Amino acid sequence: MPELRKDPVTGRWVIISTERRKRPNDFRFERPSVLGRDQCPFCPGREALTPPEVFAYRQNGGSPNSRDWDVRVVPNKFPALQVEGGLDREGDGMFDRMNGIGAHEVIIETPDHDKTFATMSEPEIERVLSAYRERVLDLKQDRRLRYILVFKNQGATAGATLEHAHSQLIALPIVPDFVREEIEGARRHFQAKERCVFCDIIRQELSAGVRIVQETADIVALSPYAPRFPFETWLLPRRHAARFEEAPRHEFQSLARLLKAIVVRFGRALEWPAYNIIVHSAPFNDANHGTDVYHWHVELLPKLARTAGFEWGTGFYINPTSPEEATRVLRAVRI
Amino acid sequence: MPELRKDPVTGRWVIISTERRKRPNDFRFERPSVLGRDQCPFCPGREALTPPEVFAYRQNGGSPNSRDWDVRVVPNKFPALQVEGGLDREGDGMFDRMNGIGAHEVIIETPDHDKTFATMSEPEIERVLSAYRERVLDLKQDRRLRYILVFKNQGATAGATLEHAHSQLIALPIVPDFVREEIEGARRHFQAKERCVFCDIIRQELSAGVRIVQETADIVALSPYAPRFPFETWLLPRRHAARFEEAPRHEFQSLARLLKAIVVRFGRALEWPAYNIIVHSAPFNDANHGTDVYHWHVELLPKLARTAGFEWGTGFYINPTSPEEATRVLRAVRI
Repeated sequence: MPELRKDPVTGRWVIISTERRKRPNDFRFERPSVLGRDQCPFCPGREALTPPEVFAYRQNGGSPNSRDWDVRVVPNKFPALQVEGGLDREGDGMFDRMNGIGAHEVIIETPDHDKTFATMSEPEIERVLSAYRERVLDLKQDRRLRYILVFKNQGATAGATLEHAHSQLIALPIVPDFVREEIEGARRHFQAKERCVFCDIIRQELSAGVRIVQETADIVALSPYAPRFPFETWLLPRRHAARFEEAPRHEFQSLARLLKAIVVRFGRALEWPAYNIIVHSAPFNDANHGTDVYHWHVELLPKLARTAGFEWGTGFYINPTSPEEATRVLRAVRI
Repeated sequence: MPELRKDPVTGRWVIISTERRKRPNDFRFERPSVLGRDQCPFCPGREALTPPEVFAYRQNGGSPNSRDWDVRVVPNKFPALQVEGGLDREGDGMFDRMNGIGAHEVIIETPDHDKTFATMSEPEIERVLSAYRERVLDLKQDRRLRYILVFKNQGATAGATLEHAHSQLIALPIVPDFVREEIEGARRHFQAKERCVFCDIIRQELSAGVRIVQETADIVALSPYAPRFPFETWLLPRRHAARFEEAPRHEFQSLARLLKAIVVRFGRALEWPAYNIIVHSAPFNDANHGTDVYHWHVELLPKLARTAGFEWGTGFYINPTSPEEATRVLRAVRI
């Protein structure tokens, strides 16, 4: 049974999930190895190689786990958390733990083994975003859960172990530290100014212009003022709203358009780097969790520099590329 | 001029240091490449290949930058921060920045190109720790500075770009987030219980025993209850004290002994992995910075698993090895 444990100093929760290791006594450094087409469990016709699907889009209305799907969501075969059981929160002296209850799912984005966000059509990407929303709306009904982390690793150096385009979703009974910090910061700003900090950022960035990479009527893509990573890019909806899954359809269309455009800009400017995409959205099942002060957004992080040791262990970052320079480089790409 | 910028949401400072990039227009993924013996600028006789030294131990009292040294400290040739200038704190609308003032130094630990903490003698490691202390005590006098990050990257996958054993020191005009979080957590605990959280951890862990890897009269080496990384190991002094640089000699002797022992345990149990060592100590030049509530310690982080995408971007961790199992494996090593 995976376990959630809280660090007694910082209050940060971690998942201890021993089932995820390939061999029980193998602790060595894992070299990136990516499953290619021959062994791909995500290609149509190999549906039996994954756990049974929990959701799919099928234009022709075929039966579950048949091969005629457009997007398919399945439980992760090596889940970091498990669905069955009680949280069993308990103390162990000064320490706090609970069972690693939650969901860990894989969103298979397309039947085509070779497509990526760079080559999918905008409606195809929008369909992936809709699948995220469907799964979040379903999982949110589970009162044990507090946060759903939706993310995508593209490329081996970004953590992908399968070539075939997919995203992941981890539903958690706790709120991860990075969201808690953003919400606390947003709340401090709101208490001081009675305005959303993200709305203020959008307003100032649109007026300054030097860090705006691209914009639509609904979404602004920008290089943040203090980026941790070179070419870190945020996609912020202009309209204030706390939750990704409650966004209207035209915002998803805009988001799909910008996700594709930014990924293509990364590719042409930076030789098709690996990257991560992370959806940031407000927690749920807790009155105090930032519904008013938070503003959902999406972060794109290309994997360009090795994270040095102390950055990896401390979360303190040295970024060799200014966001103004990153903006100039990304804006110069013809798309 | 490098720059420090503050994220307006979380309050996290980052260093934007464009001088650190090898070629101005090269943003590609850096493959690990490590300078070996032939081109090593840290070997004796090549003192002219580094900036002039700021500190050294020389048993025979030779002149600075001559070749008869035991430990040598030089400014980093590609510094993330620069020493000269004023902080020039300023706002840019809602954003906050200051000049990237600080120091970035390299501690060359031994004249011997092939030695590591695993093969150095305990007195040799203690001499490295003493060099850390000397530099911290000197740099602390600079009233512009607030924190000194002392760390070591061993091996290419841990971020080292030179084979020859060395540590680094970055003196900062801000307190990095990870220290601020630890201090805030320690202060919450102190306010609730009037006890140091680290002292409480040591007491509980010594009584439970299952996460104690090794101990001396002065220092306890343990696997923390909620580790972010497999085999993460903390070295905690039994005596409550906020600052590494004020530790008495016998604690440095114990620390040297345990650093060597743990690195050897990592090596024998885990096939000599790359690792990072990070010193955690209280900030200075600010009355409110945790002198009473903080407890200095050292973290050892072997680099065993790739950090997956969402962990890299979020600081939320899935650890495939429980600390109890890590303790059993490390304790079973004969040293």
